[in-house]
Amino acid sequence: RHAGELHLQLRRRLFFSHRDLDWILDMYEAGRKFVLYTGRGPSGPVHIGHLVPWIFTKYLQDAFDAKLYFQMTDDEKFLVNPDFTLDKTRRLAYDNALDVIAVGFDAKKTKIIMDVEDADIIYKIAIRVAKKITFSTIRAVFGLNESSNIGIIFFPAVQAVPCFIESELTGENVPCLIPAAIDQDPYWRVTRDVAPKLGYLKPAQIHCKFLPGLGKGGKMSASLPETCIFTTDSPEDVDRKIWNAFTGGRPTVKEQKMHGGDPTICPIYYYDHYLFEDDDRKIKEIYMKCRSGDLLCGEHKTMLSEKIKKFLKEHQKRREKAKDLLDEFLFKNR
Amino acid sequence: RHAGELHLQLRRRLFFSHRDLDWILDMYEAGRKFVLYTGRGPSGPVHIGHLVPWIFTKYLQDAFDAKLYFQMTDDEKFLVNPDFTLDKTRRLAYDNALDVIAVGFDAKKTKIIMDVEDADIIYKIAIRVAKKITFSTIRAVFGLNESSNIGIIFFPAVQAVPCFIESELTGENVPCLIPAAIDQDPYWRVTRDVAPKLGYLKPAQIHCKFLPGLGKGGKMSASLPETCIFTTDSPEDVDRKIWNAFTGGRPTVKEQKMHGGDPTICPIYYYDHYLFEDDDRKIKEIYMKCRSGDLLCGEHKTMLSEKIKKFLKEHQKRREKAKDLLDEFLFKNR
Repeated sequence: RHAGELHLQLRRRLFFSHRDLDWILDMYEAGRKFVLYTGRGPSGPVHIGHLVPWIFTKYLQDAFDAKLYFQMTDDEKFLVNPDFTLDKTRRLAYDNALDVIAVGFDAKKTKIIMDVEDADIIYKIAIRVAKKITFSTIRAVFGLNESSNIGIIFFPAVQAVPCFIESELTGENVPCLIPAAIDQDPYWRVTRDVAPKLGYLKPAQIHCKFLPGLGKGGKMSASLPETCIFTTDSPEDVDRKIWNAFTGGRPTVKEQKMHGGDPTICPIYYYDHYLFEDDDRKIKEIYMKCRSGDLLCGEHKTMLSEKIKKFLKEHQKRREKAKDLLDEFLFKNR
Repeated sequence: RHAGELHLQLRRRLFFSHRDLDWILDMYEAGRKFVLYTGRGPSGPVHIGHLVPWIFTKYLQDAFDAKLYFQMTDDEKFLVNPDFTLDKTRRLAYDNALDVIAVGFDAKKTKIIMDVEDADIIYKIAIRVAKKITFSTIRAVFGLNESSNIGIIFFPAVQAVPCFIESELTGENVPCLIPAAIDQDPYWRVTRDVAPKLGYLKPAQIHCKFLPGLGKGGKMSASLPETCIFTTDSPEDVDRKIWNAFTGGRPTVKEQKMHGGDPTICPIYYYDHYLFEDDDRKIKEIYMKCRSGDLLCGEHKTMLSEKIKKFLKEHQKRREKAKDLLDEFLFKNR
């Protein structure tokens, strides 16, 4: 209602649930700015599934002229992966930051926090949060237990920090909206409990689903590289991976022409639906033609491959430029 | 054996136990330097009981030309005291640092770490330590439980950091000796378990007892101010508190002259023994005269009061000067 038209990802219900979004929009209408907060756990290369909440966050930044804190939880990834060193998570955090910047955030309104490097400000706020959270809460909410290491037990306090950092720095109580994938919800439930105890507003949230992988079922996951489109994939990678993808099609062309395909189980269709086909008329047409058997999987794959390659070409160009912009975006250089 | 003569606090067995001290001295004889590490939890003003390990640490610094890391655990005190703010613990840390400096440490070889302000380096090392410590260990060693806050659960990793900070900064594996009160031993037991897993040497330790309070039994504790000699006490405070102190004397002068006093339960005697009477001949004489009834409690109190007032006058002079030296001593200004 504030941004002219609804973003594709809202229209198509990729962002499907929220908490206090109406409240934060009411505040905005009453003239009160809010900050955005999202993040990334740097455990490997970025794929197009990761980009979903970032693209949506950029849309929110533009629509509401909002400052964004983007948190790189290199500490978390170090603490949960037995064989990760701090060097490795740091390198991944810097690499992943290029993808963040390539999404097109406004350098003047975006600060990328590196948990380990920005620990001076993070720790100071995190211990205030931590003082209000008991081990039983962490065990119940995150399923941690006796054998969990004490770093990861402390970590939920660190992940809460960016909700409050603008308030901390400005001395005002600034509302915060978190666009993020639904799996992060437990963190915000804990954070919302703590916020009033520290005199802060509860952060609002808007949640997205996961993008499906290219295999049969499951989310896009970097641990299955052939089912993933990475942001640094070559055109050949894209062609091959899309060509090998699972679809909602029939075993033979003849059967498909007769009975039609099933877009509701088809990653190829979902990528168009959620990311690559902005035109509502066209997406409806794709759906109908798949259902009727007029659009064969091969054709659809070729169409999508072209769109993804075009998208990645642009992204990779901006990703290259991001190397020069990185310093501007880092919180430590504020 | 390395310092010419044994320090008073070693001779009189105030420092009474150790772990790996012989090993660290062997290393030293073989030409390898070690660093010293001790600290303070800034929860209130400093009293003469707190000075005991610091005075001994200064002796070690001089004798072995050793670098000292002095940790102010303002985070810990914030996390365990429900009504403490970070502002309060920070102010106490800065105030207590004056007493540390007044003990006479070498500014060139001493770095005072403020946990919260130095979190940039602390956190980086602490999460490496934390990754190797489970909640069960922390619960077993420190008696923490389900209701403990996640900040204090993480804290043992923070207290371990100064053992490794010289190695971290220099890239060499530098041995570390911790002179501290015996109650801190559990931290070092955990730290010694973790050290080899991170490729560091296990820290060595030397433990001291607590100085008794001026009341009957118990250690000197700031929560009972009348049983404490604070470093900022006036001469009148000292006279009053010492005069009101419990002693090992008899109910009446007559009985005391007849049966003698009991120095083994007498704080007045212990202060002379552990801190204020360096001369072995004289301390023996005091002991004998107390036992025989030749030294009355009033006399002994007056003698001790004079020594303490003289000591505090000097300490307070150096404490005043410490305000100008503070910046030089802070780790963050390294």
